[in-house]
Amino acid sequence: MKKILVTGATGFIGRRCVPALAARGFDVHAVSSKDCDLIDGAQAEKLVAKVRPTHLLHLAWIAQPGVFWESPQNLAWLAAGVRLVDAFYRGGGRRAVGAGSCAEYADTADDCSEEGTSLSPATRYGECKAAMYYALRGAARERGSWAWARFFFPYGAGEPAGRFIPSVIDGLVRGKPVDCTEGRQVRDFVHADDVAEACVALVEGEASGAYNVGTGQGASLREVATLAVGELGHGELVRFGARPSPAFDPARVVASMEKTRRDFGWRARIALAEGLRMTISARKALAEGTT
Amino acid sequence: MKKILVTGATGFIGRRCVPALAARGFDVHAVSSKDCDLIDGAQAEKLVAKVRPTHLLHLAWIAQPGVFWESPQNLAWLAAGVRLVDAFYRGGGRRAVGAGSCAEYADTADDCSEEGTSLSPATRYGECKAAMYYALRGAARERGSWAWARFFFPYGAGEPAGRFIPSVIDGLVRGKPVDCTEGRQVRDFVHADDVAEACVALVEGEASGAYNVGTGQGASLREVATLAVGELGHGELVRFGARPSPAFDPARVVASMEKTRRDFGWRARIALAEGLRMTISARKALAEGTT
Repeated sequence: MKKILVTGATGFIGRRCVPALAARGFDVHAVSSKDCDLIDGAQAEKLVAKVRPTHLLHLAWIAQPGVFWESPQNLAWLAAGVRLVDAFYRGGGRRAVGAGSCAEYADTADDCSEEGTSLSPATRYGECKAAMYYALRGAARERGSWAWARFFFPYGAGEPAGRFIPSVIDGLVRGKPVDCTEGRQVRDFVHADDVAEACVALVEGEASGAYNVGTGQGASLREVATLAVGELGHGELVRFGARPSPAFDPARVVASMEKTRRDFGWRARIALAEGLRMTISARKALAEGTT
Repeated sequence: MKKILVTGATGFIGRRCVPALAARGFDVHAVSSKDCDLIDGAQAEKLVAKVRPTHLLHLAWIAQPGVFWESPQNLAWLAAGVRLVDAFYRGGGRRAVGAGSCAEYADTADDCSEEGTSLSPATRYGECKAAMYYALRGAARERGSWAWARFFFPYGAGEPAGRFIPSVIDGLVRGKPVDCTEGRQVRDFVHADDVAEACVALVEGEASGAYNVGTGQGASLREVATLAVGELGHGELVRFGARPSPAFDPARVVASMEKTRRDFGWRARIALAEGLRMTISARKALAEGTT
């Protein structure tokens, strides 16, 4: 019997993982903040003792746009996460997959590589995710296997408003101006459906370690906006350079996908243009109140 | 007013730091496991709220010889440590120094360097210390300054029996055989008095980051034993090769001391031969019941 505890199960990625895991034969025990206050380490431990999962997909973390980068709540999620993964293996858990981030890596002109790029985060979120990476490694030692999924830039239906892609689409759909930074930053945008598939592949696999979850392809914010304008028109609404760049805004953040492909045979399947069309459809439907 | 909370204050390093900090004008609030169960994060938070220190020297951690490398208690110390340092800065703390370890580094033939050697521990202790390093970085961000003291191989009076140097000295003093591994491993042994001085320098300094605390010089276990035999005789009692090497036993672990010297002007002052003589005197006195 494979019984998986999924935390953050109603989140942007989690809600896609739950049905995918059920489809692969997992008995899914999905929890969200409504079920259990996982930021309390004692409750996290109780939950594991009650459910006794064989697998764990730990996605819960502070994710509030604009706030999560520097919130001290990252430290509370870290402390609770350490107790959660320790309790998981102590209770006989076999394999855990945790949600990491490209924000753990040092700023680099090269593709970010799990083995070659040092971990030198520039945000509190990145520091706490890097800490959680070592904590999961430490928890799993001699007790089970583990993977740490470093998400690059997930996008897709349900992405919180205010982030780059939703704000461009929402502006174009509603005919309102969208003030952007210069927009020359290159990011590895990966569709949330692909991210969920990667999580399932990591849960089902056996190799232990950190694994990038991206596409291996970079696109500048200008390129993304141009694709959206190609679908929705009104290019004049997107004002590049109208906003100053934030203090930390690396020029390029793109995943090397070699290790994930080699060890799990996984690769993203949704091309950016296609993924944006899907996202636009979903947000238009939402704006028109038809969902 | 400088008020420092010292955890692990009765430990091998802590007991040396307390008087040294008092001598530098700190109001020292020293706690040990008898005062407060710091492995309980809630108690750690209460302690900080009560003491309201401006400085923190966090030395408390599992240290039981032979057990600490892989004990799951490392995870409990990590979870509690995250809450402690977060509470410290939240409460207005200005500067924290945490105790790290050379066990955080990847196995390397070069000197271990804070900026050049990747963190890839081979023990649960090392993983949890690496996690705590990122947690302290994350806790301090935008709230205060911090340093992470990576201790190499502290030795000196009061080192727990059963570790290499005490076991050689105790064997020679008592005329009992000492079974050793091949003994060709090279380690950076640093006297505990020097380690305590380094802690004080890091507490009083301002630079933030990880700092090695070693001598920059390596000595093989055979060389150390030869020095002890030079003082105590009975070289026939030390049997190299009588014990198998442990599973993880890197050939060479020596600190690069460049960064610590550059930023803090600190260097170890006690040469190995001198430090061993001091340690032998202390252990002989202990064996003869004259202390």
